Amino acid sequence: MIKVGIVGGTGYTGVELLRLLAQHPEVRLEMVTSRGKVGTPVAELFPNLRGQVNLDFSEPDSERLAACDLVFFATPNGIAMEMAGPLLEAGVRLIDLAADFRLKDPALWQDWYGMTHACPDLLGEAVYGLPEVNRTAIIGARLVANPGCYPTAVQLGFLPLLDAEGVDLSSLIADCKSGVSGAGRKAAVGTLLAEASESFKAYGVPGHRHLPEIRQGLETVSGHKTGLVFVPHLTPMIRGIHATLYLRLDNPSLDLQALFETRYGDEPFVDVLPAGSHPETRTVRGANHCRLAVHRAPGSDVVVVLSVIDNLVKGAAGQAVQNMNIMFSLDESVGLHGIALLP
Amino acid sequence: MIKVGIVGGTGYTGVELLRLLAQHPEVRLEMVTSRGKVGTPVAELFPNLRGQVNLDFSEPDSERLAACDLVFFATPNGIAMEMAGPLLEAGVRLIDLAADFRLKDPALWQDWYGMTHACPDLLGEAVYGLPEVNRTAIIGARLVANPGCYPTAVQLGFLPLLDAEGVDLSSLIADCKSGVSGAGRKAAVGTLLAEASESFKAYGVPGHRHLPEIRQGLETVSGHKTGLVFVPHLTPMIRGIHATLYLRLDNPSLDLQALFETRYGDEPFVDVLPAGSHPETRTVRGANHCRLAVHRAPGSDVVVVLSVIDNLVKGAAGQAVQNMNIMFSLDESVGLHGIALLP
Amino acid sequence: MIKVGIVGGTGYTGVELLRLLAQHPEVRLEMVTSRGKVGTPVAELFPNLRGQVNLDFSEPDSERLAACDLVFFATPNGIAMEMAGPLLEAGVRLIDLAADFRLKDPALWQDWYGMTHACPDLLGEAVYGLPEVNRTAIIGARLVANPGCYPTAVQLGFLPLLDAEGVDLSSLIADCKSGVSGAGRKAAVGTLLAEASESFKAYGVPGHRHLPEIRQGLETVSGHKTGLVFVPHLTPMIRGIHATLYLRLDNPSLDLQALFETRYGDEPFVDVLPAGSHPETRTVRGANHCRLAVHRAPGSDVVVVLSVIDNLVKGAAGQAVQNMNIMFSLDESVGLHGIALLP
Amino acid sequence: MIKVGIVGGTGYTGVELLRLLAQHPEVRLEMVTSRGKVGTPVAELFPNLRGQVNLDFSEPDSERLAACDLVFFATPNGIAMEMAGPLLEAGVRLIDLAADFRLKDPALWQDWYGMTHACPDLLGEAVYGLPEVNRTAIIGARLVANPGCYPTAVQLGFLPLLDAEGVDLSSLIADCKSGVSGAGRKAAVGTLLAEASESFKAYGVPGHRHLPEIRQGLETVSGHKTGLVFVPHLTPMIRGIHATLYLRLDNPSLDLQALFETRYGDEPFVDVLPAGSHPETRTVRGANHCRLAVHRAPGSDVVVVLSVIDNLVKGAAGQAVQNMNIMFSLDESVGLHGIALLP
Repeated sequence: MIKVGIVGGTGYTGVELLRLLAQHPEVRLEMVTSRGKVGTPVAELFPNLRGQVNLDFSEPDSERLAACDLVFFATPNGIAMEMAGPLLEAGVRLIDLAADFRLKDPALWQDWYGMTHACPDLLGEAVYGLPEVNRTAIIGARLVANPGCYPTAVQLGFLPLLDAEGVDLSSLIADCKSGVSGAGRKAAVGTLLAEASESFKAYGVPGHRHLPEIRQGLETVSGHKTGLVFVPHLTPMIRGIHATLYLRLDNPSLDLQALFETRYGDEPFVDVLPAGSHPETRTVRGANHCRLAVHRAPGSDVVVVLSVIDNLVKGAAGQAVQNMNIMFSLDESVGLHGIALLP
Repeated sequence: MIKVGIVGGTGYTGVELLRLLAQHPEVRLEMVTSRGKVGTPVAELFPNLRGQVNLDFSEPDSERLAACDLVFFATPNGIAMEMAGPLLEAGVRLIDLAADFRLKDPALWQDWYGMTHACPDLLGEAVYGLPEVNRTAIIGARLVANPGCYPTAVQLGFLPLLDAEGVDLSSLIADCKSGVSGAGRKAAVGTLLAEASESFKAYGVPGHRHLPEIRQGLETVSGHKTGLVFVPHLTPMIRGIHATLYLRLDNPSLDLQALFETRYGDEPFVDVLPAGSHPETRTVRGANHCRLAVHRAPGSDVVVVLSVIDNLVKGAAGQAVQNMNIMFSLDESVGLHGIALLP
Repeated sequence: MIKVGIVGGTGYTGVELLRLLAQHPEVRLEMVTSRGKVGTPVAELFPNLRGQVNLDFSEPDSERLAACDLVFFATPNGIAMEMAGPLLEAGVRLIDLAADFRLKDPALWQDWYGMTHACPDLLGEAVYGLPEVNRTAIIGARLVANPGCYPTAVQLGFLPLLDAEGVDLSSLIADCKSGVSGAGRKAAVGTLLAEASESFKAYGVPGHRHLPEIRQGLETVSGHKTGLVFVPHLTPMIRGIHATLYLRLDNPSLDLQALFETRYGDEPFVDVLPAGSHPETRTVRGANHCRLAVHRAPGSDVVVVLSVIDNLVKGAAGQAVQNMNIMFSLDESVGLHGIALLP
Repeated sequence: MIKVGIVGGTGYTGVELLRLLAQHPEVRLEMVTSRGKVGTPVAELFPNLRGQVNLDFSEPDSERLAACDLVFFATPNGIAMEMAGPLLEAGVRLIDLAADFRLKDPALWQDWYGMTHACPDLLGEAVYGLPEVNRTAIIGARLVANPGCYPTAVQLGFLPLLDAEGVDLSSLIADCKSGVSGAGRKAAVGTLLAEASESFKAYGVPGHRHLPEIRQGLETVSGHKTGLVFVPHLTPMIRGIHATLYLRLDNPSLDLQALFETRYGDEPFVDVLPAGSHPETRTVRGANHCRLAVHRAPGSDVVVVLSVIDNLVKGAAGQAVQNMNIMFSLDESVGLHGIALLP
């Protein structure tokens, strides 16, 4: 059994981790921390966990964390980088669901996150936890940077095309739509039901933190500079990301469907739909899958990729569990068999 | 007083027309037809109209329609083209909220709508009712083709850029999101709340009927062929369209904000938001406005335009009333002063 | 023209007042205050008001307020009672949309609201602003206590029955459902879209502040003690209250439909639906109407009344404007002709 | 392994059964029938089942069904009663998720369902599948009538009180709210997102088919006639039922909390919340639990019970699987461990 601790268990990625880990056959949940809720039963805050998780929230005690095999950080940005060093030294392996270890360049991190990085020396060692790209590196990793939600949906959609012949990497567009759980479980006017439901809007057009993360990912794989436009939108639902991707491809004979099916044929959590499909986010609600469809726009050299994930599962907690399974040499799908709730 | 008839008053564009016309000070509503609901009080089907509309649905009687000054068709595609000829001959002016008279080329119409056009000779005379483009022609029109909902949002967003220097008309992308009222008030599994809420999807990627309409509009204004990619999506809300438009512009010095403000400075229903804004569809819910914002994507030569309308108002019934006001030389805003319901 | 000020214009009752007053033909809006938003244009916070309200939020300056004919308080509970005295002395008439003047008994107020009342001497003078009960008193009032949202829906539903023969006033049940805008426009986890949508719950069963207000209203009209059970629920929508009312009536021959139609025959904003109807909240969305239906439960002596309002209109801002119209001897419906947005 | 067939697999109870059975360790799914979809892969209609269910929909072939150990009917009312006889004779055990075998009195069934019952002789044998009441009878049953969704929520809420001292069984009120999936997966205007979202309404006040079912259940347990008022409402969400129950209890000293905890202490799927709680439907979304809270209304002799279930799980498919587990002497919870999706 893997002894697991969760630092910061009161947010949406926290409760989703708990939902998945509570039924994971190889995990023993040792502690769930929250400075603000010390002593409160986890199941009081999240009654869906009644009878499943019998822990109380506790202080993020270093010694007790150091006794875990694996610690997940489901904290705001900037926490994991303060705590990672000593835990790694104590032999604990870490998966950070926040952004602290996603960007390789500490200056870039500082630009986008507004903080000096606390342990830039660990950035090189941290493995970007997108299994479909970095599976081998994840196996041996001490420190995994779990990808952002938009970056997961966008990269999985673009990946098969990155080294296709005739692709114009200077003209990538990612028009993304997310449910509001992506904004987290924090009191804020903008994500009140009375503000965010029955409405649709773009946000962050002048610059969003997931832009450098996606760009880094695409450039690492392709080995080329890319020109990426990324526009996120808020859509009135709880869970789900839909990425609509546009890319010019000067190669009319390329069999896009075959390209995608070949690329992902062995992937347990990437599902390429039949040609002509339009994936719906609800088909992955609560599940760890990314479902993809690839089209050519009519009368055009533009390829349109449709990519859907549940932002809290494949876009956060589920992918983190997938990474854990890889790190601990378990079957990659253990604990992730849940079928999406439809309707 | 303008004597007005509505053919096909049981759908969403019908009830929205009724909401607007019931309080229009220059309109006398003579009849509202529905073959399926003859004899049913309008206010029984739509209780929001109790005390406001005292008519019953009636047969689409040609003689009574011929006694109107203006007839709106809020019917499915293919009805108006069958009835238009005789009514025009009788001196009635017509506004068709369906697609029968939007495309100038009858062959193109047949390709996309799957019907032979019943009166191709009228296509030349029909005026495309986008006031921001065709105001002068609308004044004298006998027959106005009210634009589609997506085409309204998309064209208003692209218009100011079409003759800007350095614009690449071959690379237009319109990523559009619509509330489900755009699918109409007809029994269908796909738009049930249990199917369409808490989910997001693209549809019609291989080809949507609004594509040729938008392309025709853009090419008429610009005088050039355009390469347009159009991807519509269904978003889980009732009303609202958000168009996110992408266009390459090789002209770094162009003042986009000024361009838009100048183009729309005199328009009563197009509102250019301050630089840096992100319009929300709810700010036009129930109102006839289009609200726009224009951005440059960071580190890119791509212009991003955000355009929102209420698909049932500026995208249908409101724009039809605006056209009526123009045709009958009224103040263009009469009956359209309603403020969006927020929250 | 009535010179009007609004104290506390950044909440939902504030923006709804602004929507209604901006188009009221007899009102000149002088000032809208907000300590936290001084200097911000009203239309920046609420873009639906662009082109309609050109004021900035200002300090609640006593002198400027004293120059108004009427001041609306759209503030949290406890503010109006601090400012009312001097304004009344200055000859300003007041309508408080909060709860400060709703209860006649200051001890009861203190019990439920947890504050000592700042001006208990004014409680006697304050008129409870339910026009269907207190129209005459409202005409001459200096200080109107605008009713709560639930109390409006519940009292209008029970009123016709209160002096019917055979009614059991000891067995009143009000099972009420409200959209989340009733919780106000304040950052809170519980009303986030991700928390409150796709879910339904009761709250406040052990005691809700509207209970004593409803009881006081029912007892004032009936002249009898009543046994009222009141259970409010949160329903995943923005606007609307649906009250389902239960009452035992030992009088099988009473014509309930006639009773209701007679009671409300002259009321401009209470609409009794035909027998057998089930009112939907959307039929009053954005409108000042209360729509009612009355049933006998099958095989039972229980009367079931269904009562719907828009909590922000007839349940708050619209009723406040109706009260203003009465106070200033205008037609009661001026500025309140808006038709509900359906769909 | 239990060989299972499903008749009528294209509705919401069908897809939910498939979701649960696909991962049930003791079940082998033999066939899923649908006359209208013969030959269509199940996973094409329900893409959440891709990789999980590899069957095509087939004809309801009697011989193949007769080879199953158990057949679930997830059909409209009136189908199971036509097919049940021969299947029982062939030794197949049956669980009907429709209403055909719920009422014991064929005349009553005919009154409410408008059809003559096809096999009234089986009504006596059929066991009403509410495990919390009939567990022992279910073990040996050949034919189980799976309870309706409202009846499950209501009966579980009332049960502990039925034989308490001082309870007034003549004054039961069940005010129930359901998400729209309860209306099924059929094309209908009334449950379109554009009709049913952002709105709330009662329906069926003059009489709903679940009224006689609930009454029969309560009277069977209590041994007394009951006076039940039942008012169902439609709430704008997909899944979930919230029953708010009212009952007069002339026994101030009764410890309600203890009564409920004792009654359900051994039940795997009924969870009594701590005193003072308000269960939310989302805490059971996708799970087979009923969560309950019991209150005394302030200043009143009325008991208020709050009962929530997922209408498609404990209110349909989950309860059917629970019944199957009991019938086949498995652990009652096998295949039903799924934790509710929150948020």
